[in-house]
Amino acid sequence: MALALVLVVLLAAVAAAREAHGYVAYNTSAGTVAGLLNVHLVPHSHDDVGWLKTVDQYYVGSNNSIQGACVMNTLDSVVDALARDPGRKFVVAEQAFFQRWWVEKSPQIQAIVHKLVDSGQLEFINGGWCMHDEAATHYIDMIDQTTLGHRVIKKQFNKTPRAGWQIDPFGHSAVQAYLLGTELGFDSVHFARIDYQDRAKRKDDKGLEVIWQGSRTFGSSSQIFTNAFPIHYSPPDGFSFEVLNDMTPVQDDPLLFDTNVEQRVNDFVSAAIAQANVTRTNHIMWTMGDDFNYQYAESWFRNMDRLIHYVNKDGRVHALYSTPSIYTDAKHASNESWPLKQDDYFPYADSTNAYWTGYFTSRPTFKGYVRMLSGYYLAARQIEFLVGGSFTSSLEDALGIAQHHDAVSGTAKQHTTDDYSKRLALGASQVEKGVNTALSCLTSSKGTCMSPAVKFTQCQLLNISYCPSTEEQISGGKGLVITAYNPLYLLQVITAYNPLGWEHSDFIRVPVNDLHLVVKGSDGSFVDSQLVEVDNVTSNLRKLYVKAYLGINTDKPPKYWLVFQASVPPMGWNTYFVSKPKGAGSNRMGYVSSIASPSKDTVEVGPGSLKMTFSSASGQLTRMFNSITGVDLPIQQSFLWYGSNNGDGADSQASGAYIFRPDGSTPTVVSRSVPLKVIRGPLVDEVHQQFSPWIYQVTRLYKDKEHAEVEYTIGPIPVNDGIGKEVITRLTANMVTNHTFYTDSNGRDFLKRVRDYREDWDLQVTQPVAGNYYPVNLGMYVTDGKYELSVLVDRAVGASSIQDGQIEMMFHRRILYDDGRGVGEPLDETVCVDSKCDGLVARGTYYVNVNKLGHGAHWRRTQGQKVYSPFLLGFAHEVYLYSSVSLFS
Amino acid sequence: MALALVLVVLLAAVAAAREAHGYVAYNTSAGTVAGLLNVHLVPHSHDDVGWLKTVDQYYVGSNNSIQGACVMNTLDSVVDALARDPGRKFVVAEQAFFQRWWVEKSPQIQAIVHKLVDSGQLEFINGGWCMHDEAATHYIDMIDQTTLGHRVIKKQFNKTPRAGWQIDPFGHSAVQAYLLGTELGFDSVHFARIDYQDRAKRKDDKGLEVIWQGSRTFGSSSQIFTNAFPIHYSPPDGFSFEVLNDMTPVQDDPLLFDTNVEQRVNDFVSAAIAQANVTRTNHIMWTMGDDFNYQYAESWFRNMDRLIHYVNKDGRVHALYSTPSIYTDAKHASNESWPLKQDDYFPYADSTNAYWTGYFTSRPTFKGYVRMLSGYYLAARQIEFLVGGSFTSSLEDALGIAQHHDAVSGTAKQHTTDDYSKRLALGASQVEKGVNTALSCLTSSKGTCMSPAVKFTQCQLLNISYCPSTEEQISGGKGLVITAYNPLYLLQVITAYNPLGWEHSDFIRVPVNDLHLVVKGSDGSFVDSQLVEVDNVTSNLRKLYVKAYLGINTDKPPKYWLVFQASVPPMGWNTYFVSKPKGAGSNRMGYVSSIASPSKDTVEVGPGSLKMTFSSASGQLTRMFNSITGVDLPIQQSFLWYGSNNGDGADSQASGAYIFRPDGSTPTVVSRSVPLKVIRGPLVDEVHQQFSPWIYQVTRLYKDKEHAEVEYTIGPIPVNDGIGKEVITRLTANMVTNHTFYTDSNGRDFLKRVRDYREDWDLQVTQPVAGNYYPVNLGMYVTDGKYELSVLVDRAVGASSIQDGQIEMMFHRRILYDDGRGVGEPLDETVCVDSKCDGLVARGTYYVNVNKLGHGAHWRRTQGQKVYSPFLLGFAHEVYLYSSVSLFS
Repeated sequence: MALALVLVVLLAAVAAAREAHGYVAYNTSAGTVAGLLNVHLVPHSHDDVGWLKTVDQYYVGSNNSIQGACVMNTLDSVVDALARDPGRKFVVAEQAFFQRWWVEKSPQIQAIVHKLVDSGQLEFINGGWCMHDEAATHYIDMIDQTTLGHRVIKKQFNKTPRAGWQIDPFGHSAVQAYLLGTELGFDSVHFARIDYQDRAKRKDDKGLEVIWQGSRTFGSSSQIFTNAFPIHYSPPDGFSFEVLNDMTPVQDDPLLFDTNVEQRVNDFVSAAIAQANVTRTNHIMWTMGDDFNYQYAESWFRNMDRLIHYVNKDGRVHALYSTPSIYTDAKHASNESWPLKQDDYFPYADSTNAYWTGYFTSRPTFKGYVRMLSGYYLAARQIEFLVGGSFTSSLEDALGIAQHHDAVSGTAKQHTTDDYSKRLALGASQVEKGVNTALSCLTSSKGTCMSPAVKFTQCQLLNISYCPSTEEQISGGKGLVITAYNPLYLLQVITAYNPLGWEHSDFIRVPVNDLHLVVKGSDGSFVDSQLVEVDNVTSNLRKLYVKAYLGINTDKPPKYWLVFQASVPPMGWNTYFVSKPKGAGSNRMGYVSSIASPSKDTVEVGPGSLKMTFSSASGQLTRMFNSITGVDLPIQQSFLWYGSNNGDGADSQASGAYIFRPDGSTPTVVSRSVPLKVIRGPLVDEVHQQFSPWIYQVTRLYKDKEHAEVEYTIGPIPVNDGIGKEVITRLTANMVTNHTFYTDSNGRDFLKRVRDYREDWDLQVTQPVAGNYYPVNLGMYVTDGKYELSVLVDRAVGASSIQDGQIEMMFHRRILYDDGRGVGEPLDETVCVDSKCDGLVARGTYYVNVNKLGHGAHWRRTQGQKVYSPFLLGFAHEVYLYSSVSLFS
Repeated sequence: MALALVLVVLLAAVAAAREAHGYVAYNTSAGTVAGLLNVHLVPHSHDDVGWLKTVDQYYVGSNNSIQGACVMNTLDSVVDALARDPGRKFVVAEQAFFQRWWVEKSPQIQAIVHKLVDSGQLEFINGGWCMHDEAATHYIDMIDQTTLGHRVIKKQFNKTPRAGWQIDPFGHSAVQAYLLGTELGFDSVHFARIDYQDRAKRKDDKGLEVIWQGSRTFGSSSQIFTNAFPIHYSPPDGFSFEVLNDMTPVQDDPLLFDTNVEQRVNDFVSAAIAQANVTRTNHIMWTMGDDFNYQYAESWFRNMDRLIHYVNKDGRVHALYSTPSIYTDAKHASNESWPLKQDDYFPYADSTNAYWTGYFTSRPTFKGYVRMLSGYYLAARQIEFLVGGSFTSSLEDALGIAQHHDAVSGTAKQHTTDDYSKRLALGASQVEKGVNTALSCLTSSKGTCMSPAVKFTQCQLLNISYCPSTEEQISGGKGLVITAYNPLYLLQVITAYNPLGWEHSDFIRVPVNDLHLVVKGSDGSFVDSQLVEVDNVTSNLRKLYVKAYLGINTDKPPKYWLVFQASVPPMGWNTYFVSKPKGAGSNRMGYVSSIASPSKDTVEVGPGSLKMTFSSASGQLTRMFNSITGVDLPIQQSFLWYGSNNGDGADSQASGAYIFRPDGSTPTVVSRSVPLKVIRGPLVDEVHQQFSPWIYQVTRLYKDKEHAEVEYTIGPIPVNDGIGKEVITRLTANMVTNHTFYTDSNGRDFLKRVRDYREDWDLQVTQPVAGNYYPVNLGMYVTDGKYELSVLVDRAVGASSIQDGQIEMMFHRRILYDDGRGVGEPLDETVCVDSKCDGLVARGTYYVNVNKLGHGAHWRRTQGQKVYSPFLLGFAHEVYLYSSVSLFS
């Protein structure tokens, strides 16, 4: 047409003014009120300490093309917003971010923050360095990273966080409940992720909020109020007000179009009532935030101010700015009774075929590195304390970050994982320097640290036989000094066997290049030693990974492992001396292992009382028995892999970094017949088994040990058949285990697991394998009426017992699809040299023990401590005059 | 591998600390310094007063799925950021946004803003309600919207903006330079968009900054310093710091990874030197912002603070927070000489095939509505003043918004355009009420406004014959009162002919349903009238659009137009009375037009001295002549359409809302033979031509008028052949016009245009049609040695003279592709009734005059004023006792 576009909308004229146009002083100061439904608005931002971006990228806001997120924005703008209105509140969790921010702030801003904290407008919750994972973390790491954060909060603000705020971790551990909850001083813990079937039932029963007793031992003496959210840690639909996001702002200016305040109040009341219907008491919590939200805090507060103001004017429900502490106080004050919850919230599933049990294993070498450095850090701190130095803070920070629920969990992008590794490596390198110096002091004959005579080195890549110090040719007067530090201290052993501290005796293995070496103790006495040839698999690993990680070409692999038993006092050290006796052919040379060719049907190995037998024909383990304990168990061991589901017609859900979804067929046995090589000697017998071109295993039976130590080398996992593979080892014993197995909680205590069963609800089994996987950090075991079959691990893995008498552990995964939970990358780890990349090889160790029923716990506890806290080894090449005795002769 | 991921990156250890870790007080207080290159950082946000979203959606931040933009965020966070550091500065342009914000602010915030404005930290630039378009706007609207903004700034802050800031409009008009620049008190104007060829040359010559004399008449007495940016109004690449955007923040904390402050300083210096190489003096401006930026201002300021601090420490160049005023002062102080620029910066092209000349015509009915209401608003303000009321502010606001460079330009999304129309309709409706009341007062016999006896109505849809008041049956004693208000006042006529105010005499046309009506003046004397049958095209339009826009079913179209000549004093009114004489068949009835069938080869029409002849065979115009002036010109007129280019192999650029890119073929003639209907009468002769099913034209020659009035009705433009069409009318006269034509600048004065030529550079002709289009608001003309052929328009159109003797005007466009400049919609306007949609029909009017050389200006000026300011008509149906004379008899 032409002239007058007198639109039909005219007929729907602007509604009468509801508020005066102009400035409105919103009333945000309300606390709770009795007799009304109280909607606690808890403003928060969930800031991953690394995930799609690195922690520093998240902090400064770089790399926004991956994810628009900048924690500086959140903290800067939140402080402005809180200062603007004393009614507003905000909770801060991750100290890795807060502390980055705090040190940069001017005294003026710091003073404002002090005021906000003092007044309760800004409350620290959780308060650790990160929001740690609960499946793949060791309890010592959990404590350390939490302590790190709480320490600075206490120092800076004289405050101790009251609320656990584990909103995002993918399942929740028993240790979190009591050790990282009650024992830490928290009176509540809050989280979003619990099994979808569990949640449905809890909503029906108004049982989302419970009293959680994480420890059956401590029971009600260590329980915590626990709040599982009805949906997620974001607000109810339509109540997110993140800057630049699509939203429906609350519009109350009658002079602007689209005034909607009445509609928004109605929406608010509806959402509140819906939540009240699944919640006990007349207090409900709305988590007003999401991942890296409050990039401009005013966008949230401006709208929440209006909601609180108008909802309270409306009067049907009551809205207030709140925090988990205020919320918990209100809950406590209500005198409501709560359901009891025991054990843990594992495994987590968010839908039928989406069990988040893959991440128990994802990125096994990173998990291994974290665990190795965790023990190393513990030892280093002791040494630091002994010599009075300060060289562990960088590793403390890196380890704190690495406990994040997208770090050690293996669910970060590759570049972020590399950043975690880099931080750990930088930290470890700093610690290494400090420890080297400290060892010189500690072992100095003069007892002082001034100009230490001996320059120590350490070998972080010892597991792949890379140790320049020990590989060096040992000449006459200048021998190799090996100092072993034993970080083990008085153990809190739960059995009565050995309540005392101990002298730690363990075997040391170092790569050497000389057949003619002898080992002496610090008193000059000879120590038995054994030489074992370095196998080709290790030599090849060494070449590839030393090049890949250090950029160093290592053409000549060392020839032998020198093995000897060292004995070190608790929290003390001992020194050994390796030398080449003058004149070859000395009768003092160490024992060179013999390689045995099997001649009988079965091969029996073991230098001590523990024996294992293998079938000569198949190369497979058949039996373990111990002549002292009298235990005798037929047992098999094999490697298998689950094909990763790429998503199928029934469900597009793929297996990935988070989720374990096998393709449904029975797992493929890697090989039924295994070439066997047996190496024998007085200290150790080794069985080398090449299961396939990409799986190698060495079983070691040491003299005087009551377990087998099994080192696996897995990878590169072949995927050129287009199938992702999730590799397990499976022990099958002749035991009636009654669906039951036991897995540890964060390396601390063991929880009973029953296959295809949940105590809290009637489980609908949709994933008979993935749904029975549990996180293992220390180990697991099964029992029948007679024996306990136990395994221990050197890092976090996923594990289960899919059939009676079985134990299976997932050691490695290589997957070609993303599982749609945000990381956006398939879990396909590679290692590259000269831009040639291949799948990552994972090498790790597990330990197998068979004991009589009731006797396994002691081994699991003591050996578990040794696995976590091995000797810290320092090496030196010096003319060493430790005593008047010539040690290098 | 496994354990130690001692990454290669370790080798590239963290560089030594550059600044102390911790709080850094950045020095941002620097002014300009002599002897160094000064980089003026001008923090700004370009906030479109509607475009992809409506103005209110932009303000409150709703509809962010279309575009993440919320002006509240910008203003709220800028004030926080400025208050944090007195070195920081920011410029604010669009008052439509600022005023929405200001009224909502608390007295505390308002006090802070007062301080910031007083100290110069916050500077208002441009200061109009919007950043008006410069092509499709009338100078009165430009002045009004600018005045509206400046008035409130003056009132609130006692400040007057110094700088023109037209950074985004798509070309720049001469009127902008002198009337909206110098005459407004600006001492500089800044913008980004000039022709790409022009820009290249100006960069070579260091001629981007000029002294612009927009008026050849005023010359150097009205010139302005003009700064065309070297690239755009965003910062140099890599220096945008908009929250959540991908960016490289300046990182100076040596304890974080990716410290980059040295690299960023180097980048800064490089970018500065690059710009200095195309700029005179050692002052360059960086426009630190972009569309709807500063959503969280601290993100920008945090990084700019660091840049200023470290760049100035570096010392190679000098960086400072600045504003256009500070920059202009520095330029003035430099005593540099500047190139002279005359005329304007039209048309604008940003690449070879991208002439932004489509928007001169885009959305012709919206352009028409804006222009109609502009004249209406002017009349209403006079009436408001006369009666002392206050009813125009809502329309003032709506018109202010409508001048925005994505509003009247036709380059906003459809829903936004609907919002503009709604605002205009609401404003017009408010004005209509006020005017109705006022007319009652003004025409009251008692001379008072108390309880007006007569209830007036007005008819906004008169052009499609919809006017309930006049259509109503007129019965005996209750006649139709028509009051005409004449808003024309003492004209600033540039010729000497008629320097006086005038009695405006013009023809009134209202739809009626009775053959037997008479018209009387207020003195009771009869006025000649003529009845013309309402044509079917108009009846059909009426039915469709009254339903579409008002939701009213109008089954019975009116039968006749009642035409009579009214004469009204300047800025005064006159009243006419339409009645039905008692007894049908009265000899006082008006003249009923006769329909003539052409009998000769040519048809000559025109009741007065101006005649037009048409070919009986083809129905086409052949000649215009005037028996009094002696002018006689062979002339043809036709409709044609350019096929829109959808993007082709040579260039994917499509024709669209902004860009006119015809498909390269000669335009298609709509019809060479046109059915002709001639209607004759004493007051007006009409020629009705149906050019095609979708083009209808009525040419009217009124008694005593020296021009033809031509009403075109175009649409729905058929596009089922998949071809977008851009419809022009072309007048072809037998004139040698020497490549030259004249188009007006914002309806004020005329600029000379020469085909395929630019005065400022050697034009490379790539688009021989689109590159010769210019914006027309008042009209255009061509001359030869003898005659002037002039046309006037009732709204903004694009026009050109592609061949000598030709005038062509683009009246309507319907296009099926988007042209990639952001709006993201094809310009395919439709109108829907009962969810059945069809292409929009545009009805408008142009006026054609032939005069002897030198005599056209007077007609263009006076008739142009009449087109802009027609009578404002009020209608009433009352027993009206205006005087003792019975007027309804």
